[in-house]
Amino acid sequence: MNADERWFQGHLREIDEAECWELVRSREVGRVAYADEHGPMVVPITFAVDDESLLFRVAPYSELARHLPGARAAVEVDDIDYFTRSGWSVVLRGTIESLDSDDLPAPEARPTPWPEGQRTMHLRLTPEVITGRRLLEA
Amino acid sequence: MNADERWFQGHLREIDEAECWELVRSREVGRVAYADEHGPMVVPITFAVDDESLLFRVAPYSELARHLPGARAAVEVDDIDYFTRSGWSVVLRGTIESLDSDDLPAPEARPTPWPEGQRTMHLRLTPEVITGRRLLEA
Repeated sequence: MNADERWFQGHLREIDEAECWELVRSREVGRVAYADEHGPMVVPITFAVDDESLLFRVAPYSELARHLPGARAAVEVDDIDYFTRSGWSVVLRGTIESLDSDDLPAPEARPTPWPEGQRTMHLRLTPEVITGRRLLEA
Repeated sequence: MNADERWFQGHLREIDEAECWELVRSREVGRVAYADEHGPMVVPITFAVDDESLLFRVAPYSELARHLPGARAAVEVDDIDYFTRSGWSVVLRGTIESLDSDDLPAPEARPTPWPEGQRTMHLRLTPEVITGRRLLEA
Protein backbone atom coordinates (compact mmCIF):
# COMPACT_ATOMS: atom_id res chain seq x y z
CA MET A 1 0.00 0.00 0.00
CA ASN A 2 1.40 3.40 -0.89
CA ALA A 3 0.56 6.80 0.57
CA ASP A 4 -1.92 7.61 -2.18
CA GLU A 5 -3.98 4.52 -1.41
CA ARG A 6 -3.79 5.02 2.32
CA TRP A 7 -5.49 8.38 2.12
CA PHE A 8 -7.99 8.02 -0.66
CA GLN A 9 -9.51 4.56 -0.47
CA GLY A 10 -13.22 4.43 0.26
CA HIS A 11 -15.00 2.55 3.01
CA LEU A 12 -17.16 -0.49 2.29
CA ARG A 13 -20.42 -0.95 4.22
CA GLU A 14 -22.99 -3.74 3.98
CA ILE A 15 -26.50 -2.71 2.91
CA ASP A 16 -29.43 -4.39 4.66
CA GLU A 17 -32.07 -6.25 2.68
CA ALA A 18 -34.77 -3.56 2.90
CA GLU A 19 -32.41 -0.91 1.56
CA CYS A 20 -31.16 -3.31 -1.14
CA TRP A 21 -34.71 -3.56 -2.47
CA GLU A 22 -35.18 0.19 -2.28
CA LEU A 23 -32.02 0.71 -4.34
CA VAL A 24 -32.95 -1.97 -6.89
CA ARG A 25 -36.34 -0.29 -7.33
CA SER A 26 -34.55 2.98 -8.12
CA ARG A 27 -32.91 1.52 -11.24
CA GLU A 28 -34.10 0.00 -14.52
CA VAL A 29 -30.97 -1.72 -15.83
CA GLY A 30 -28.91 -4.48 -14.22
CA ARG A 31 -26.41 -7.04 -15.44
CA VAL A 32 -27.39 -10.69 -15.47
CA ALA A 33 -24.68 -13.31 -14.96
CA TYR A 34 -25.34 -16.84 -16.15
CA ALA A 35 -23.41 -19.80 -17.51
CA ASP A 36 -23.23 -20.97 -21.10
CA GLU A 37 -21.01 -23.62 -22.71
CA HIS A 38 -18.00 -21.26 -22.48
CA GLY A 39 -18.41 -20.48 -18.78
CA PRO A 40 -19.70 -17.39 -16.97
CA MET A 41 -21.30 -14.67 -19.08
CA VAL A 42 -22.74 -11.28 -18.10
CA VAL A 43 -24.82 -8.78 -20.08
CA PRO A 44 -26.95 -5.72 -19.28
CA ILE A 45 -30.70 -6.25 -19.00
CA THR A 46 -33.69 -4.01 -18.30
CA PHE A 47 -35.90 -5.22 -15.48
CA ALA A 48 -38.98 -4.38 -13.46
CA VAL A 49 -39.43 -5.18 -9.77
CA ASP A 50 -42.59 -7.18 -9.03
CA ASP A 51 -43.06 -7.64 -5.30
CA GLU A 52 -39.71 -9.18 -4.28
CA SER A 53 -38.75 -10.56 -7.66
CA LEU A 54 -37.25 -9.20 -10.88
CA LEU A 55 -39.01 -9.50 -14.23
CA PHE A 56 -37.21 -9.49 -17.59
CA ARG A 57 -38.25 -9.83 -21.19
CA VAL A 58 -36.01 -11.53 -23.71
CA ALA A 59 -36.32 -12.44 -27.36
CA PRO A 60 -37.15 -16.07 -28.12
CA TYR A 61 -34.19 -17.84 -29.79
CA SER A 62 -31.77 -15.36 -28.13
CA GLU A 63 -28.80 -16.46 -26.04
CA LEU A 64 -30.66 -15.39 -22.89
CA ALA A 65 -33.73 -17.41 -23.92
CA ARG A 66 -31.53 -20.46 -24.44
CA HIS A 67 -29.67 -20.22 -21.15
CA LEU A 68 -31.75 -18.48 -18.50
CA PRO A 69 -34.99 -20.46 -18.07
CA GLY A 70 -34.58 -22.94 -15.21
CA ALA A 71 -30.98 -21.88 -14.62
CA ARG A 72 -29.27 -20.26 -11.70
CA ALA A 73 -28.31 -16.63 -12.26
CA ALA A 74 -27.18 -13.48 -10.47
CA VAL A 75 -28.30 -9.96 -11.26
CA GLU A 76 -26.15 -7.02 -10.25
CA VAL A 77 -27.61 -3.51 -9.98
CA ASP A 78 -25.43 -0.55 -9.13
CA ASP A 79 -24.80 3.16 -9.27
CA ILE A 80 -21.17 4.18 -9.44
CA ASP A 81 -19.80 7.72 -9.33
CA TYR A 82 -16.41 8.11 -10.98
CA PHE A 83 -15.91 11.61 -9.65
CA THR A 84 -16.15 10.70 -5.96
CA ARG A 85 -15.10 7.06 -6.50
CA SER A 86 -18.12 5.94 -4.50
CA GLY A 87 -21.34 4.07 -5.15
CA TRP A 88 -23.39 1.03 -4.31
CA SER A 89 -23.96 -2.42 -5.74
CA VAL A 90 -26.68 -4.98 -5.00
CA VAL A 91 -26.58 -8.63 -6.13
CA LEU A 92 -29.63 -10.89 -6.32
CA ARG A 93 -29.08 -14.63 -6.72
CA GLY A 94 -31.56 -17.38 -7.50
CA THR A 95 -33.16 -19.49 -10.20
CA ILE A 96 -34.85 -18.03 -13.26
CA GLU A 97 -38.32 -19.21 -14.18
CA SER A 98 -40.13 -18.73 -17.44
CA LEU A 99 -43.60 -17.17 -17.05
CA ASP A 100 -46.78 -18.25 -18.77
CA SER A 101 -48.98 -15.43 -19.99
CA ASP A 102 -51.36 -16.28 -17.09
CA ASP A 103 -48.62 -15.46 -14.60
CA LEU A 104 -47.78 -12.02 -15.95
CA PRO A 105 -48.43 -8.95 -13.83
CA ALA A 106 -50.61 -6.09 -15.08
CA PRO A 107 -49.19 -4.46 -18.26
CA GLU A 108 -48.02 -1.35 -16.38
CA ALA A 109 -45.96 -3.55 -14.03
CA ARG A 110 -44.14 -5.38 -16.82
CA PRO A 111 -40.59 -4.49 -17.82
CA THR A 112 -40.05 -2.25 -20.84
CA PRO A 113 -36.89 -3.33 -22.66
CA TRP A 114 -34.87 -0.41 -23.96
CA PRO A 115 -33.64 -2.09 -27.17
CA GLU A 116 -35.75 -2.82 -30.19
CA GLY A 117 -36.86 -6.38 -30.91
CA GLN A 118 -39.74 -8.68 -30.10
CA ARG A 119 -38.95 -9.63 -26.51
CA THR A 120 -41.94 -11.86 -25.91
CA MET A 121 -40.42 -14.31 -23.42
CA HIS A 122 -41.05 -13.21 -19.83
CA LEU A 123 -38.70 -14.39 -17.10
CA ARG A 124 -38.67 -14.01 -13.33
CA LEU A 125 -35.81 -14.14 -10.84
CA THR A 126 -37.00 -14.68 -7.28
CA PRO A 127 -33.81 -14.21 -5.30
CA GLU A 128 -32.87 -16.60 -2.50
CA VAL A 129 -30.19 -14.17 -1.44
CA ILE A 130 -29.91 -10.40 -1.86
CA THR A 131 -26.78 -8.63 -0.69
CA GLY A 132 -25.44 -5.13 -1.17
CA ARG A 133 -22.42 -3.04 -0.45
CA ARG A 134 -21.92 0.67 -0.42
CA LEU A 135 -18.56 2.26 -1.13
CA LEU A 136 -18.42 5.51 0.82
CA GLU A 137 -16.20 8.38 -0.22
CA ALA A 138 -12.77 8.33 1.35
CA MET B 1 -45.61 -4.73 -28.66
CA ASN B 2 -47.58 -1.59 -27.90
CA ALA B 3 -47.38 1.82 -29.54
CA ASP B 4 -45.05 3.17 -26.87
CA GLU B 5 -42.48 0.46 -27.54
CA ARG B 6 -42.79 0.75 -31.29
CA TRP B 7 -41.74 4.37 -31.25
CA PHE B 8 -39.20 4.61 -28.50
CA GLN B 9 -37.06 1.49 -28.57
CA GLY B 10 -33.39 2.01 -29.30
CA HIS B 11 -31.27 0.39 -31.97
CA LEU B 12 -28.59 -2.19 -31.15
CA ARG B 13 -25.31 -2.13 -33.06
CA GLU B 14 -22.27 -4.40 -32.74
CA ILE B 15 -19.00 -2.71 -31.72
CA ASP B 16 -15.81 -3.90 -33.40
CA GLU B 17 -12.88 -5.16 -31.37
CA ALA B 18 -10.73 -2.04 -31.71
CA GLU B 19 -13.52 0.19 -30.46
CA CYS B 20 -14.32 -2.30 -27.66
CA TRP B 21 -10.78 -1.84 -26.33
CA GLU B 22 -11.01 1.93 -26.67
CA LEU B 23 -14.23 1.93 -24.63
CA VAL B 24 -12.82 -0.43 -21.98
CA ARG B 25 -9.79 1.86 -21.62
CA SER B 26 -12.15 4.78 -20.95
CA ARG B 27 -13.52 3.16 -17.76
CA GLU B 28 -12.08 2.03 -14.44
CA VAL B 29 -14.84 -0.20 -13.05
CA GLY B 30 -16.35 -3.35 -14.53
CA ARG B 31 -18.36 -6.27 -13.19
CA VAL B 32 -16.73 -9.66 -13.04
CA ALA B 33 -18.92 -12.74 -13.45
CA TYR B 34 -17.64 -16.05 -12.13
CA ALA B 35 -19.01 -19.25 -10.66
CA ASP B 36 -19.00 -20.29 -7.03
CA GLU B 37 -20.71 -23.24 -5.30
CA HIS B 38 -24.10 -21.47 -5.63
CA GLY B 39 -23.81 -20.79 -9.36
CA PRO B 40 -23.10 -17.59 -11.26
CA MET B 41 -22.02 -14.55 -9.27
CA VAL B 42 -21.21 -10.99 -10.38
CA VAL B 43 -19.63 -8.08 -8.51
CA PRO B 44 -18.07 -4.72 -9.43
CA ILE B 45 -14.30 -4.57 -9.68
CA THR B 46 -11.77 -1.86 -10.49
CA PHE B 47 -9.36 -2.76 -13.28
CA ALA B 48 -6.48 -1.46 -15.34
CA VAL B 49 -5.88 -2.31 -18.99
CA ASP B 50 -2.40 -3.72 -19.67
CA ASP B 51 -1.84 -4.23 -23.38
CA GLU B 52 -4.85 -6.38 -24.33
CA SER B 53 -5.57 -7.78 -20.89
CA LEU B 54 -7.30 -6.60 -17.72
CA LEU B 55 -5.53 -6.45 -14.37
CA PHE B 56 -7.31 -6.63 -11.02
CA ARG B 57 -6.25 -6.63 -7.41
CA VAL B 58 -8.14 -8.61 -4.82
CA ALA B 59 -7.69 -9.30 -1.14
CA PRO B 60 -6.22 -12.68 -0.24
CA TYR B 61 -8.83 -14.88 1.52
CA SER B 62 -11.63 -12.96 -0.25
CA GLU B 63 -14.35 -14.66 -2.28
CA LEU B 64 -12.71 -13.39 -5.46
CA ALA B 65 -9.33 -14.78 -4.39
CA ARG B 66 -10.95 -18.16 -3.71
CA HIS B 67 -12.81 -18.40 -7.01
CA LEU B 68 -11.06 -16.41 -9.74
CA PRO B 69 -7.51 -17.79 -10.11
CA GLY B 70 -7.45 -20.42 -12.86
CA ALA B 71 -11.19 -20.05 -13.49
CA ARG B 72 -13.16 -18.88 -16.47
CA ALA B 73 -14.75 -15.46 -16.03
CA ALA B 74 -16.43 -12.65 -17.94
CA VAL B 75 -15.96 -8.95 -17.29
CA GLU B 76 -18.61 -6.48 -18.40
CA VAL B 77 -17.81 -2.79 -18.81
CA ASP B 78 -20.50 -0.31 -19.76
CA ASP B 79 -21.78 3.23 -19.77
CA ILE B 80 -25.54 3.59 -19.63
CA ASP B 81 -27.53 6.81 -19.87
CA TYR B 82 -30.95 6.65 -18.21
CA PHE B 83 -32.06 9.94 -19.68
CA THR B 84 -31.64 8.94 -23.33
CA ARG B 85 -32.02 5.19 -22.67
CA SER B 86 -28.85 4.57 -24.61
CA GLY B 87 -25.34 3.34 -23.92
CA TRP B 88 -22.76 0.69 -24.63
CA SER B 89 -21.58 -2.54 -23.09
CA VAL B 90 -18.44 -4.59 -23.72
CA VAL B 91 -17.88 -8.16 -22.44
CA LEU B 92 -14.47 -9.82 -22.17
CA ARG B 93 -14.33 -13.58 -21.64
CA GLY B 94 -11.40 -15.80 -20.77
CA THR B 95 -9.46 -17.49 -18.01
CA ILE B 96 -8.07 -15.63 -15.01
CA GLU B 97 -4.45 -16.11 -14.05
CA SER B 98 -2.76 -15.18 -10.81
CA LEU B 99 0.35 -13.04 -11.26
CA ASP B 100 3.65 -13.45 -9.48
CA SER B 101 5.32 -10.24 -8.40
CA ASP B 102 7.82 -10.76 -11.26
CA ASP B 103 4.99 -10.54 -13.79
CA LEU B 104 3.54 -7.26 -12.57
CA PRO B 105 3.65 -4.22 -14.82
CA ALA B 106 5.26 -0.98 -13.68
CA PRO B 107 3.57 0.51 -10.58
CA GLU B 108 1.85 3.27 -12.55
CA ALA B 109 0.24 0.66 -14.84
CA ARG B 110 -1.24 -1.37 -11.97
CA PRO B 111 -4.91 -1.10 -10.99
CA THR B 112 -5.85 1.11 -8.05
CA PRO B 113 -8.78 -0.44 -6.20
CA TRP B 114 -11.27 2.13 -4.98
CA PRO B 115 -12.20 0.36 -1.72
CA GLU B 116 -10.00 0.14 1.33
CA GLY B 117 -8.28 -3.12 2.19
CA GLN B 118 -5.02 -4.89 1.45
CA ARG B 119 -5.61 -6.11 -2.08
CA THR B 120 -2.28 -7.78 -2.62
CA MET B 121 -3.32 -10.56 -5.01
CA HIS B 122 -2.87 -9.50 -8.63
CA LEU B 123 -4.97 -11.20 -11.32
CA ARG B 124 -5.05 -10.96 -15.09
CA LEU B 125 -7.82 -11.71 -17.56
CA THR B 126 -6.55 -12.17 -21.12
CA PRO B 127 -9.76 -12.36 -23.11
CA GLU B 128 -10.24 -14.99 -25.80
CA VAL B 129 -13.31 -13.12 -26.94
CA ILE B 130 -14.26 -9.44 -26.65
CA THR B 131 -17.67 -8.33 -27.89
CA GLY B 132 -19.63 -5.13 -27.54
CA ARG B 133 -22.98 -3.63 -28.32
CA ARG B 134 -24.13 -0.07 -28.49
CA LEU B 135 -27.72 0.89 -27.84
CA LEU B 136 -28.46 3.99 -29.91
CA GLU B 137 -31.15 6.45 -28.97
CA ALA B 138 -34.51 5.70 -30.53
